Amino acid sequence: MRGVSEEVLLARAYLSRVAEPCSVPLWDFVRRDGPVAVAAAIRSGTAPDGITAATEARRAVADPEADLDAAERHGLRLVVPESPDWPHFALSCLEHAGARRAAEYAAGRIRRSEQGEPVPPLALWVRGTGDLGGLGVRSVGLVGARAATPYGEHVTKTFAGGLGLHGFTVVSGGAFGIDAAAHRAALATRVPTVLVSAGGLDRAYPQAHTDLYDRVAETGLLVSESPPGSAPFRSRFLSRNRLIAALSTGTVVVEAAQRSGARNTATHCWRLGRPVMIVPGPVTSAQSVGCHDLLRHPEREVTLVATVEHVLEVIGSLGDSVDREPEEADAGTTQADDHAPTGRPPTAPRTRRPSVLDTLDDTSRRVYDGMPARRPVTVSDLVVTSGLGISAVLRSLPALELAGLVQVEPDGLLRRTVAKARAG
Amino acid sequence: MRGVSEEVLLARAYLSRVAEPCSVPLWDFVRRDGPVAVAAAIRSGTAPDGITAATEARRAVADPEADLDAAERHGLRLVVPESPDWPHFALSCLEHAGARRAAEYAAGRIRRSEQGEPVPPLALWVRGTGDLGGLGVRSVGLVGARAATPYGEHVTKTFAGGLGLHGFTVVSGGAFGIDAAAHRAALATRVPTVLVSAGGLDRAYPQAHTDLYDRVAETGLLVSESPPGSAPFRSRFLSRNRLIAALSTGTVVVEAAQRSGARNTATHCWRLGRPVMIVPGPVTSAQSVGCHDLLRHPEREVTLVATVEHVLEVIGSLGDSVDREPEEADAGTTQADDHAPTGRPPTAPRTRRPSVLDTLDDTSRRVYDGMPARRPVTVSDLVVTSGLGISAVLRSLPALELAGLVQVEPDGLLRRTVAKARAG
Repeated sequence: MRGVSEEVLLARAYLSRVAEPCSVPLWDFVRRDGPVAVAAAIRSGTAPDGITAATEARRAVADPEADLDAAERHGLRLVVPESPDWPHFALSCLEHAGARRAAEYAAGRIRRSEQGEPVPPLALWVRGTGDLGGLGVRSVGLVGARAATPYGEHVTKTFAGGLGLHGFTVVSGGAFGIDAAAHRAALATRVPTVLVSAGGLDRAYPQAHTDLYDRVAETGLLVSESPPGSAPFRSRFLSRNRLIAALSTGTVVVEAAQRSGARNTATHCWRLGRPVMIVPGPVTSAQSVGCHDLLRHPEREVTLVATVEHVLEVIGSLGDSVDREPEEADAGTTQADDHAPTGRPPTAPRTRRPSVLDTLDDTSRRVYDGMPARRPVTVSDLVVTSGLGISAVLRSLPALELAGLVQVEPDGLLRRTVAKARAG
Repeated sequence: MRGVSEEVLLARAYLSRVAEPCSVPLWDFVRRDGPVAVAAAIRSGTAPDGITAATEARRAVADPEADLDAAERHGLRLVVPESPDWPHFALSCLEHAGARRAAEYAAGRIRRSEQGEPVPPLALWVRGTGDLGGLGVRSVGLVGARAATPYGEHVTKTFAGGLGLHGFTVVSGGAFGIDAAAHRAALATRVPTVLVSAGGLDRAYPQAHTDLYDRVAETGLLVSESPPGSAPFRSRFLSRNRLIAALSTGTVVVEAAQRSGARNTATHCWRLGRPVMIVPGPVTSAQSVGCHDLLRHPEREVTLVATVEHVLEVIGSLGDSVDREPEEADAGTTQADDHAPTGRPPTAPRTRRPSVLDTLDDTSRRVYDGMPARRPVTVSDLVVTSGLGISAVLRSLPALELAGLVQVEPDGLLRRTVAKARAG
């Protein structure tokens, strides 16, 4: 828990226990006044009316010390926005959506969402060794029916393995069926996998997946918004689905029956600007009816995906080569791809010192050029200024960060690191 | 061959033999000068250059008397635009497309289509007892892979039987796989079926389907643009696909491999304003790759269909009840649905004589109202004036014709029969 004060940790643990996920006013209150003050206000019954009502049942009994002790006993840790491994990048979409929603609430345009409000979690209970902070850059949600068919499980395995080969982390919900097939295929092929649970991480849901949870924790991550001992209520599944949507660069629905959580997950993806991909199946299969329904009547854009390549087309492939402009082929020794013929005669004049900028591929260069010199920006801003798709922007960020050109700030905003721009 | 002179029949038989299908200049020439004059010009070598070149190989050897004799021996007849059973209605889309194409040719904007030009056939060789003239109103194309899977054949059977129950004729191409499954399912469930062949109807293509051809002819129809003895060249398959597209209210592609004729048929449908419907399948099946490709990258609109109901949503259902406006429920004795409670008290005043118009459902009434009093119009015109979809317009026409309100002219145009409008 490097860098996080005990006070903040206890306050966030308290907030995580005292309120259900997805409260817009509570998130907004914490955003404005900070977790310590808000926890104190709730405990003393001096929080605004709406928040007091929503926290009344547990405000006196919530015991964050006990929860943190229980967490430790179960090998869990609490990650908070103040922690260095908080997934700022992945959750920035929820920050933006939450801010819009909070403004609507403040303006009195309150219409309660049935889907789980798109606000960031106040804290995340986590178990395992996987990389939480890097999620969203190169992670794919693979979700679908509990009553999956052998066809659906086969496709899931193919997709999990294939996307893993391209460096993607497989995110899913740990349920029977497609979820389990996704985690298992990832484990079998040594692909990092993240299991986002709707209940507390002290036990597995379903219980039959106790072993699966343990195996995921060994190399990957278990993540939950709810403290130990929380049962996976329906509303927590809906909230959980928004986390899968946010933590994944894009989400693939492999199989879904007529009534399924797939449309809920898709709705979260659409709200957050995350691509929704759908695998079709036999029209004779009840477990593909929901998929075909989403393809027939999408509320917003969906893409039919039949192969791993189709998924990569949508959410990008860091391994893909990117055409460089001729002038960039002049960069010489710092060129990332040493084998590419440059076509430059040995005597070509050098007009300027090679720069780190020259090592950037076309896409990263456009993203970098789209950043203002001093003002931090959001990913959405970069989509607009670069004229590239969100996946292209997301793809380019790790390289920009590695090159020391861009810095991800604690609040998830991106800033150009001017001093280092000519480090080459 | 009621009503068609021997001279016209021989001329059209000659034209059918002397040129390959889909010649825009030849069709245009015939449209302007009539078949007898054009046949004479070709025979004497005095036709315009382009036409002479295209007909040079066969113009002296073509023997329409022999072809008509051979046709008779094989139980075939020649149906020509001058025949009462010419499918004017279905082919009006080709008339319009052909006229546009002819104008482009005349203007020198000639860019040869690789797909088979969208012009009407000059004549159709036909065998069987089915209804040719009524095609297009309520007919569905079911096409797909030759190397169909049991899944594809199963879906085809379900669709053919289900659509037959709703009064649809099943149109297909008589090939192995999906085509054969479509015809066989139609025959088994006594659904009218039309087989459009790419070669002459004196023999079956493939030969293994000789028995299938015979069975289709018993209750349905065999149709070909090419005279007896013509082999099914590749170009004739492409031309044939446009006839399947034109003769069907909409076309369903059930299975299609990566390289398949499905995209060609879809292209014809799009050109002719006919709906294209695609059945998805397992992503693990090579025979669904072409279907998924069409769903992923359609040139124009396609609809994923998983059930018969989905197809009916697209191309309409004559069996569906149509809500009537209250004033129409007052029509009394001429009401089509005698069992419908009118809710009219027995003493309700009669303000006007009941009219045939009162028997029309809402849709047919809108179509009728969209027709000008004297000027004949095309189906496309009616789509515009009625504000209804093409399938709704097509659906309403048989009822309007039966009611004596609308007359289909020999050239496929539709005319309001003013004298009969108050026959009730």
